[in-house]
Amino acid sequence: MRYQDAGVDISRAEDALARIRDKVRATKRPEVLGDIGAFGGLFRLPGTDTVLVATTDGVGTKLELARMLDRHEGVGTDLVHHCVNDALAMGAEPLFFLDYFSTSKLDPAVFSRVVGAMADACRAHGCALLGGETAEMPGMYAPGAYDLAGFLVGAVARDRILDPAGVREGDVLIGLPSNGLHTNGYSLARAIVWKRARSEQRDDRAVLDAPLAELRGTLGDALLATHRCYLGEVRALRGAATVRSIAHLTGGGWEGNLPRALPPGLGAAVDRDSWTVPPLFRLLIEWGGVADMEAYDTWNMGIGLVAVIARGEDRAALRALPDAIRLGTVERATSPQRVRWT
Amino acid sequence: MRYQDAGVDISRAEDALARIRDKVRATKRPEVLGDIGAFGGLFRLPGTDTVLVATTDGVGTKLELARMLDRHEGVGTDLVHHCVNDALAMGAEPLFFLDYFSTSKLDPAVFSRVVGAMADACRAHGCALLGGETAEMPGMYAPGAYDLAGFLVGAVARDRILDPAGVREGDVLIGLPSNGLHTNGYSLARAIVWKRARSEQRDDRAVLDAPLAELRGTLGDALLATHRCYLGEVRALRGAATVRSIAHLTGGGWEGNLPRALPPGLGAAVDRDSWTVPPLFRLLIEWGGVADMEAYDTWNMGIGLVAVIARGEDRAALRALPDAIRLGTVERATSPQRVRWT
Repeated sequence: MRYQDAGVDISRAEDALARIRDKVRATKRPEVLGDIGAFGGLFRLPGTDTVLVATTDGVGTKLELARMLDRHEGVGTDLVHHCVNDALAMGAEPLFFLDYFSTSKLDPAVFSRVVGAMADACRAHGCALLGGETAEMPGMYAPGAYDLAGFLVGAVARDRILDPAGVREGDVLIGLPSNGLHTNGYSLARAIVWKRARSEQRDDRAVLDAPLAELRGTLGDALLATHRCYLGEVRALRGAATVRSIAHLTGGGWEGNLPRALPPGLGAAVDRDSWTVPPLFRLLIEWGGVADMEAYDTWNMGIGLVAVIARGEDRAALRALPDAIRLGTVERATSPQRVRWT
Repeated sequence: MRYQDAGVDISRAEDALARIRDKVRATKRPEVLGDIGAFGGLFRLPGTDTVLVATTDGVGTKLELARMLDRHEGVGTDLVHHCVNDALAMGAEPLFFLDYFSTSKLDPAVFSRVVGAMADACRAHGCALLGGETAEMPGMYAPGAYDLAGFLVGAVARDRILDPAGVREGDVLIGLPSNGLHTNGYSLARAIVWKRARSEQRDDRAVLDAPLAELRGTLGDALLATHRCYLGEVRALRGAATVRSIAHLTGGGWEGNLPRALPPGLGAAVDRDSWTVPPLFRLLIEWGGVADMEAYDTWNMGIGLVAVIARGEDRAALRALPDAIRLGTVERATSPQRVRWT
């Protein structure tokens, strides 16, 4: 199975973005730093050395799983963590967050579970929940379905921005484990689960609820595991070593994200044996008959965040973060595919 | 017909918000000014006199009309203007904007029309389009349907924040005409149009496309008229007179918004004869058999923005804005209903 077979085609999104790029560039103000394609937009505050970082995300079709299993808190937490990590990838720490909650008929109980969890996650990371919009749109969504968008603004001193332009050949790639799929690749994961259910003539829900030895729990639990927030880890990392840039591995997996933390001309040599791909990913690959390359271009495969560390400082970085993994090094890029598996 | 009959119940949203209020308050950082319920959240930047204003909005079911009539540009413009006006209501000018575009199967042509129009609107108002998220969620939306959310950050010097606390009895209410429904009350408007189509045994589309003498055009055109942006007008107004506060008349109509620009204990005495309710609203009221109070609590009824001007400065304000209307004055509130029609 391919991601496309599940109805998601990343090339359509690329085509769509290409069509508006010039119009977006035309909106640039002098305060805007950088270009489209980073993990967050940068906006310099005149008269200060502070740069604002703004990012927006959704949770994708993990929402549908959460609804099916009546586990709404998780997606609220996921959304905040996703946004915080994107800000971290730019070098920023979070200041405030706003949410958009959209549904056909508002269920105050579900709403308060989702947005209450967002508030808790904001509080845990010192981020103010500054506002939100609750939209009730009859007929737009299936009964019980809702969509979420999150918007986060962070700040970073100008000389602390993580800029991929500073990455050098020989720099070291450090990975931090993910907690599962986080918030990406769920349309493919769900298609695989439904296919499995059909082939076993079982109910979708039964497949999600049955304990699996290799997962030490149910598939539903594994799929709904919370998107891990790396705020504490990135703080520790920056205190211990020179962090050049960070990639948050989200939609598009490895090839879709790691090059965003590298300058043109450089690539990443990553040792696939440096970490163990968690059982959830292996199970999805097996059940779905997913090609390796497709899996690594869709899911994070067990690594949620990759930091590029100055050569020679990787030991200090690894000492500061007990669960971090040395993945490989930055090298000259030799093909359009900029992540090279070794 | 009531708004509730169209499937939108504002009391559900109030119930939902009440449930999370304490959790949201717990996320307050020292930089956060004010409380929930303003047109935008305020965040003071440490070490400066600048306060950021953040706001998020959607377009509601105007999206469905735009889709039916293949007029996607308008909703992109609407969203930016809605957000800019909310920032203006806090006293701020826009800095940057981010968008969230969510659909089941991305159509790059439709996407580029919607987001391209957002970029044009941002550029027209000196606002950077700093980022966005494009979500493809198979099965979440009906074929061709999409949802939009906009996030805007603006800035204001601390002593230029518009704070309802400064409003005094005897201050004057100035209104600026709207351009139609703007982006609120579409579920009711659509329910009325569909009811009319059924009663006349006509196709929905035929009702929207037929020219109507009183509208000097089609109903579809009138319903899709662009949400007016008041940036230029508010600048002129603040240059000419002391503006105490501003209400952007959006979801919840008059009673839902005008009190947000007043301190506790004060109300608004508004002369309903001071302006002519545009034909579109009169037609919807007649077709739908909508009670007057319901109409004024759902739609803007022809006034998109109300500014509270210091007593004695209303003439200067009206001179600066040729199409502004003197609506009434601020008075002591004598009932829970804080807008009193005179």
